[in-house]
This record gives sequence, C-alpha cells and structure tokens, in this order.
Amino acid sequence: MDDVTDPQEKIKLINKNLFEVLNPEIVEDVVVKQNRPLVIYWGTATTGRPHCGYFVPVLKLGDFLRAGCRVKILLADIHGFLDNLKAPIELVKFRAEYYKFVITALLQAVNVPIDRLEFVLGSAYQLTPAYTMDLFRLSSVVTEHDAKKAGAEVVKQVDNAPLSGLIYPLMQALDEQHLGVDAQFGGVDQRKIFALAKEVLPRVGFGERAHLMNPMVPGLHGGKMSASDPDSKIDLLDPPDAVRRKIRKALAVPMQVEGNGLLSFVEYVLLPAGVLRYGEQRFVVNRRDGEPLAYTEIEQMREDYAADVVRASRRFPPVCSQPAQKPHVRGLRPSSQH
Amino acid sequence: MDDVTDPQEKIKLINKNLFEVLNPEIVEDVVVKQNRPLVIYWGTATTGRPHCGYFVPVLKLGDFLRAGCRVKILLADIHGFLDNLKAPIELVKFRAEYYKFVITALLQAVNVPIDRLEFVLGSAYQLTPAYTMDLFRLSSVVTEHDAKKAGAEVVKQVDNAPLSGLIYPLMQALDEQHLGVDAQFGGVDQRKIFALAKEVLPRVGFGERAHLMNPMVPGLHGGKMSASDPDSKIDLLDPPDAVRRKIRKALAVPMQVEGNGLLSFVEYVLLPAGVLRYGEQRFVVNRRDGEPLAYTEIEQMREDYAADVVRASRRFPPVCSQPAQKPHVRGLRPSSQH
Repeated sequence: MDDVTDPQEKIKLINKNLFEVLNPEIVEDVVVKQNRPLVIYWGTATTGRPHCGYFVPVLKLGDFLRAGCRVKILLADIHGFLDNLKAPIELVKFRAEYYKFVITALLQAVNVPIDRLEFVLGSAYQLTPAYTMDLFRLSSVVTEHDAKKAGAEVVKQVDNAPLSGLIYPLMQALDEQHLGVDAQFGGVDQRKIFALAKEVLPRVGFGERAHLMNPMVPGLHGGKMSASDPDSKIDLLDPPDAVRRKIRKALAVPMQVEGNGLLSFVEYVLLPAGVLRYGEQRFVVNRRDGEPLAYTEIEQMREDYAADVVRASRRFPPVCSQPAQKPHVRGLRPSSQH
Repeated sequence: MDDVTDPQEKIKLINKNLFEVLNPEIVEDVVVKQNRPLVIYWGTATTGRPHCGYFVPVLKLGDFLRAGCRVKILLADIHGFLDNLKAPIELVKFRAEYYKFVITALLQAVNVPIDRLEFVLGSAYQLTPAYTMDLFRLSSVVTEHDAKKAGAEVVKQVDNAPLSGLIYPLMQALDEQHLGVDAQFGGVDQRKIFALAKEVLPRVGFGERAHLMNPMVPGLHGGKMSASDPDSKIDLLDPPDAVRRKIRKALAVPMQVEGNGLLSFVEYVLLPAGVLRYGEQRFVVNRRDGEPLAYTEIEQMREDYAADVVRASRRFPPVCSQPAQKPHVRGLRPSSQH
C-alpha cells in the first residue's frame, strides 16, 4: 500500500477508529502547519507473551506509519524486570528481544512499512542521571493522590500496593519528554495517566503532548484479555489445534452482538487488516450452506449476526459448534509468503 | 583529648546519651569482634541555615570520631534542591559548600579530630544507574502504606503531599548500602524511617544496619526548633546582640524544669561540650550575687534550678531579666583561638 501524502488525509488516517484524542491541535500543528513527521510513542512492558490482541495497537501503529509518522516503540524492560523480581535482568533482556521480534513480525504480517519505526529499550535512558533527576523533580510536584488516581485503571488497587505503582505513571509521562515525541498512543485504559502527563510536564518546564487513544477490545471471552486466563487470548505461539480450541470456546453467543469476543476481534483486527491485504476493509465468511459473506463494515456484519445469518460458517462457528478448520488469524502471514 | 582505644570504652562512648539503638549487636560485632572502625553516616538536607541546634548531632559525631569511628556526612543536596524547586541547582551547590564549612567549624570548635570524617554529596551517587535501579527495586517491594508510615514524623502529612515524600524514606534506606556504612545516626524522629530501612534492605538482598538515635532537643521556646520561627533557634550567623535578644526571650520559666529551652541547651550542648574543653562535663554559671556555680551533671543543675538557685546569673538569665552580657554559646570557638 502506498503511504498517504496529503496532510488532511494523514490527519484522518491518524485519527481513524480512535476512541479519543487529547490535544488534537498538536497533531494538526505538526502534520499540517509544520508539515513534518509526527513522532509518536507506544510503550509496552516486556512482561507476559505478546498475543493476538497485540494486532489491535499494531494495526493502529500501521496507520501512523502509513500517515508518515515516526513511531517509537518503548520496550519497558525495567518495568518488566520490576514486575517480577524473580526474573534476572539478563532474562528480561532476551524477553525484550522477543518482543521486538514479534512486534516487527506482526507489522510485516499486515504489510506495514517499518523504515520509520524505532525500538527503544527503557533501560537505555531511564537510568541516566538526567532522567532520574527529572523523575525526582516530577515526584516533588505531583501529589500522592494524583499519582494514585492516574494509575487507578492500570495499577492493581490493593491495600498493600507497592510504591512503584505510583512512580510508573510519572515515568510514563517523563518518557514523552525523554523520547522526544509529539504524541503518546495507548488504549483508553491509559486515559488517566495521559491526563496526568498533560498536566504535570509543564510544571517542570516541559511541553504537553497529544494523546491518541484506542478503544478497549474485549478478549475472546468478552471481558478483558487476561494474562492469567490463557483461553481469553490467542498466543502467537499457539499451535493450530490450540487456536481452533480457543476459537471454539470463544464467547460468540448466537444472535448476541454486545460483548461478543469474536465479533470484536473481527471489528478491531480482521477488518482493519483487510485494508492492508485487499486495499479496503474486508472480512470474508465462508459458509457451509451458501455463498461466502463479504463484509466491509462491522455494522453490516453485526446486523447479519443479530439476524443469525452468519452462523454455519467454517471460520466463524457458533459456540460449541464443530471445529473451525482454518482460523482466519492464521491467514495473517508476512506478505512475502502470499 | 585523646581518642578512646579500649573496645568496650568505645562502645560506651558510641552509645553515650543516645535515646535508642536498633541492632546494637552490629556495633558490638564491628568494634569488638572485627576490631575495625565502625562506619556511620549522618544525613542532613541542605535546606535552611545550620543553627546552634546543630551542636547536638555534631557533638555526638564528635563522640563517634573519638571512639575511632569513620563518619560520613551526607550533604543531601538533591533533597535540598527538591525541597524548593525555585532555587537553581547551582545555588544548592554553594549551599552544600556552606554546610560543609559550618559543620567542620562546629566540630573544630568542640576540639573533635576530623581526620576520619568525610563529606559526601548526595548528587555524587544518587543519580547513578546503579542507585536508580536499586531505588526502583526497593519501590517495587515497599508498599505505599509502609513508605507513608515511615515518613510520618518527618514528612509533612497533608492531603496534597508530593510523591517525593514517599520516595525519600526509601532513598534514606538505600543510602546506607551505597555509602557502605555499618550504622546510620539521627534524631529519634527518624525512628520509623530507620525501622523501614532495617526491614526492607534485606528484601532486595542488602544487609541490615544499626541505627543510633539521639533524643529530641527542644528549641529555645521549648517546642521543636522551627525554621519558620527564627527566635526558636540561634543562627550561627547571628550577631552578638541578636544572640542576647534570643537568649533573653528564651523559654526559661523560673523554677520550671520541664520544657525549658535553655536547660535543654545546657544538657545537650554545653555540658557535653565541656568534656571537650575541660576534659569533663562542666558548665559554669557566673552569678551576680555569689560564687560561680559549676555543674558536671544536668540533674544537679535541674535541682538547683527548681530551687531557684541558678537565677541572677549573667549567663543564665530568668525570663525578661536584663541582657546576658556574654552568652556562653559564643565561648564555643575553634580551639586554636583559646
């Protein structure tokens, strides 16, 4: 696919499918007035194993890259190390390498140009004197109360919560400055941290950034994808029969559209991925007893699903139907293999 | 004065007048069994101006030095900088120099050997990658709750308290490791921070230290010495008439011993300083109408004070009496001038 060159088209592509944008004027200013690449960072802690849910932010990163943005992916290895002190830092380094490999593979699988993509290890700058001093400075202008509020949706709220949970939101704000970006991208669950960053960076003399937020995508069971429930997500290393089993067990109650894990996966991953494969949003359902159904908009598919038209497909089985023969997610392969 | 050489005498001198000691077996082990100098650190934030109250810890540091200890004085310049972000870091550096000068002068004024004394700037190591990583590690094993409890007596407890107030206690613990000391010394108001240090360092693989605590000494007004009330303390830069005025206004209610700011100053500063000047604890009160009164124990002086014997002295005026002609604190001069 060709990159988008018209500034207004770029803006449209950057904002596509986003749930919310804070300080959109920053994006406008950089892309339209300054006419230079918008620099965006997306951070991921190198803790669990990346799963198919990663296609959701990765596809959005694809939009940013196609809109001419420079994308920095922060591999938060220190965070990954601190999340489980039992893992030695050497292991965490390999883990970060694995994340880099997998995310690159996901982007290539959806035909995204990666020449404006950069990976940055948290440990490469988060332990420097300049960063540490800025973190101390931030900690002296941000209240405990505000730091706690900021982390409320992403940091476990328990009575014996470690202090690090109050420090992380400040680091996430400071990363914007030290990575030299115009915008930070993340799920809407990051909203309170983003609002804190916007508010506190100016207090220590740094600029506000734009914040681009994806909607939250439910897991295969309808709720949040959970690291502790392997059936709620498809691991990228799952063998075919495990994928089949998980799709079969996914929450896809006949005729029920809300909280439908499979429909969400189609909406946020397979349809957008269609743009990169077919040149337009497209998701095809092969049926046992009828012509294939081709969808270009999720609304259309939702209607059909509610009217029970979509069932009896090989790729989109009702709950507990027979096995999916060839789960569509396996069709997302690097373009060179097509 | 000669240094103390007998190990048991050293222990006695180290513990003299202390309010409390945590892990005294560490002190015993180093001094008696290992027979090497105990390494002690005392930290002071370079914020306000050191005043005469500094004689209290400084005299105790004198005991440590005379007992053969190595003493590291941490000039917490980063803390001083963060305490008031309006002061540029360059100014804070001069402030730290002034602290170093003043504390050295105080030690010399009381005849203490300073060849085993070392000053360390916080900024010299608290911004290094190793320290920062250890701070992150500590923050992930110490709860918000415990960090808050630790700082309860020294960090302002307000609703909008900055997050730094929870980080400082962790840094104070970590300083023990990074300064390579056997013990930390401070006022008993530091007790909860010391208890935290003792508890949490082993959780990240570091050893417990001993904690040596001075009693709290009231200000001239009887309460805590307060930076915001200049009359509660004698500034080292106060000219003689200001010293006279403050002594005159000091809380020294006739016959009342408890909460008596002047009696406390005699107990914790002038009597111990006598050891260094006269070879024994000694404080002399010149009276207008009678022979001078020489005290070697505070109990004896307290009794006389309660019986109204001490009044009518030039050096120890009752409240609102006529001016003290020559405040005794001015007698604490570097030994070279005697």
